[in-house]
Amino acid sequence: MQKMKLQTLKGFKDYLPPEALRRKFLVEKIIEVFRKFGFDPLETPTLEYAEVLKGKYGEEEKLIYEFETRGGDKVALKYDQTVPLARVIAQYPNLPKPFKRYQIQPAFRGENPQKGRYREFLQCDADIIGVSSPLADAEILALIYEIYQNLKLDVVIKINDRALLNLEPKYLAAIDKLNKIGTDGVTKELIGKGLPETKAEEVLETVKNLQMSDNLKKIQSIYEKMGYPSDSLQFDPTMVRGLDYYTGLIVEVVLKSDLNSSSLCGGGRWDKMIGQFTDTDQPAVGFAIGVDRTLEAMEEEGVLDIPPTKTEVLVTVFSVELLDASVDEVSYLRKNNISTEIYLVPDSKLEKQLKYADQKGIPYAIIIGPEEAQSNQVVLKDLKTRTQEKLDPDQLLVKLTSQ
Amino acid sequence: MQKMKLQTLKGFKDYLPPEALRRKFLVEKIIEVFRKFGFDPLETPTLEYAEVLKGKYGEEEKLIYEFETRGGDKVALKYDQTVPLARVIAQYPNLPKPFKRYQIQPAFRGENPQKGRYREFLQCDADIIGVSSPLADAEILALIYEIYQNLKLDVVIKINDRALLNLEPKYLAAIDKLNKIGTDGVTKELIGKGLPETKAEEVLETVKNLQMSDNLKKIQSIYEKMGYPSDSLQFDPTMVRGLDYYTGLIVEVVLKSDLNSSSLCGGGRWDKMIGQFTDTDQPAVGFAIGVDRTLEAMEEEGVLDIPPTKTEVLVTVFSVELLDASVDEVSYLRKNNISTEIYLVPDSKLEKQLKYADQKGIPYAIIIGPEEAQSNQVVLKDLKTRTQEKLDPDQLLVKLTSQ
Repeated sequence: MQKMKLQTLKGFKDYLPPEALRRKFLVEKIIEVFRKFGFDPLETPTLEYAEVLKGKYGEEEKLIYEFETRGGDKVALKYDQTVPLARVIAQYPNLPKPFKRYQIQPAFRGENPQKGRYREFLQCDADIIGVSSPLADAEILALIYEIYQNLKLDVVIKINDRALLNLEPKYLAAIDKLNKIGTDGVTKELIGKGLPETKAEEVLETVKNLQMSDNLKKIQSIYEKMGYPSDSLQFDPTMVRGLDYYTGLIVEVVLKSDLNSSSLCGGGRWDKMIGQFTDTDQPAVGFAIGVDRTLEAMEEEGVLDIPPTKTEVLVTVFSVELLDASVDEVSYLRKNNISTEIYLVPDSKLEKQLKYADQKGIPYAIIIGPEEAQSNQVVLKDLKTRTQEKLDPDQLLVKLTSQ
Repeated sequence: MQKMKLQTLKGFKDYLPPEALRRKFLVEKIIEVFRKFGFDPLETPTLEYAEVLKGKYGEEEKLIYEFETRGGDKVALKYDQTVPLARVIAQYPNLPKPFKRYQIQPAFRGENPQKGRYREFLQCDADIIGVSSPLADAEILALIYEIYQNLKLDVVIKINDRALLNLEPKYLAAIDKLNKIGTDGVTKELIGKGLPETKAEEVLETVKNLQMSDNLKKIQSIYEKMGYPSDSLQFDPTMVRGLDYYTGLIVEVVLKSDLNSSSLCGGGRWDKMIGQFTDTDQPAVGFAIGVDRTLEAMEEEGVLDIPPTKTEVLVTVFSVELLDASVDEVSYLRKNNISTEIYLVPDSKLEKQLKYADQKGIPYAIIIGPEEAQSNQVVLKDLKTRTQEKLDPDQLLVKLTSQ
């Protein structure tokens, strides 16, 4: 029989348990902060009518995954969480405003996969809808700051104002690459996009010398009043963000240790999109955290210390005759809320069972031989130190819950 | 300007915050039990090569969402979590065995939407790979039992053995409908599928009178030894499950209060699928919980009492002049880990701000007028009882954290 291709699609990825645990850890840490700030979750479908997504992303639109269903609907896979949010706001006019929501779901982009970037990727978004006051912009910056504090990552939040950048989107896209391709690279690209050489240099120079807008100053001042350090924000007039839909504040988060590294998080104000779905525009400001990129940064910075399994103890099975003793032990531990596995192949050699615990990274194993079964005790083996001790049920609980 | 269709695709659904919170609550409750049993998470892509999914689901295969990407790949949206798991097991032969994983991700089926059933739906799966011992089957039943206990739902776990049902899949599919269409209905369907009338009646009668297999008896006995009540399992020879891939134990969970209601959870043993991806079969047993169906059942049974927001308190803004006092208060509460919103439109009437809290279901509001700002106190308003009291910062914390 011919076997199938054993692989994921290019740019798609399996998250095996140790990696999936790291992702969950990160997402939970982010949700902690969302909750503290009073953001509630929203979930929207993976598929949308294609027309909902189209005309929103500018040049990037060609990266949308589109297809026609058997029923003849033209559909598309979600490209971000922002456009579906705009649809939701328009579709449910009675949602209480201001509307603050977070949304943690995959998005799909048919781009060339790069380090830390996949075609399917998890986004953690938060947005505030219905507020034009800079108080909302400051709240968004505060939320970003606290999230990266909670992740123990030392970051700088770059800010800029799209209103300062009175340029066509195609020129903005070129300037956005300044950190990657440098002044010469950008000038060349501006020329390639139709600007005469002197004009190209002048445009770039003008952008570099832009001063903070009054709007940014107000936002910064509220942010500082909230108690956040002023040096956590950095005005960068050449940071322009790729997407077309921003209208005011724009934000990008980078590692303090490498200001030119690719961003961990990006966002800004997008006041003109909801009006594309309904009669009236509504002010909106928010951001998206790239989960994979942020995880990668945490690994690089050595602040991600997650065990490869949540299992705390493996209860081995000494022999088929003593299976019942192990089964009882497992019930006892689980009742006491200890994450416990029983080795499920009862006639395996003890050595093999312990090797399994090592492979998975389970910290403890319990052995119940004939003697222990008799005396209602267990042998607890610490698989890191390779030491072991005989314990009563109470002693065992104390030991395992004090970890 | 012509406005777009403001709707989700048929069979797809938005989960607005109160509903998304209920889903998160349910998923967290389920994960608690997965962890207690030593299951770790796995995540696989939303898209797979179409050939990975095809030939696995029998008649249902026509419900798979398939399309061709711009790059010419024939791809499909995940139909369940089981087939992607089989691919993973074959693709990463060095995963420690037994391999126990849970997986909580959406699946997609182009079927006609029904009450509580959507074309995109969240599945909570758990499976054990690499164990043929009935100990694994019993562990799966125990896991199901504990999950529904944790959800406070009174259920019956129907069990049967596919090995008893020596019939073609198309006949099984008919018998599977017994609870919905009755004896006459099933007989008619069996005839429609090619059985002579007398034979159809005989087949159904035979199935109804089947006795528990030795395999089921062994599983049941271990399950009872683990301490679970014997009446939580119910042998039902006419419960056959729709999917083709089961090979031994099959399971369905229904509400005790309505044994004929549609199932909340289903699963079984599927020992012959992994061999379709690689040279050797591997034993496998597990289940999938339908999140939406289970939530619906919790609502019906009145065991789902989730507030519509996680926000504990809204800090109102008395006047633009007193904004700083409110900003300080918010920082203070958030530092103390209280889920706090500030009303983000500073020049709104107090009445409007309180109405917002009511609409969202926030239990408390804080008001800081000139007098309170002066005395470093706040007015805490209980929005359920409509009472209020003046509190010092310490008193406020005690009050809010004792909730």
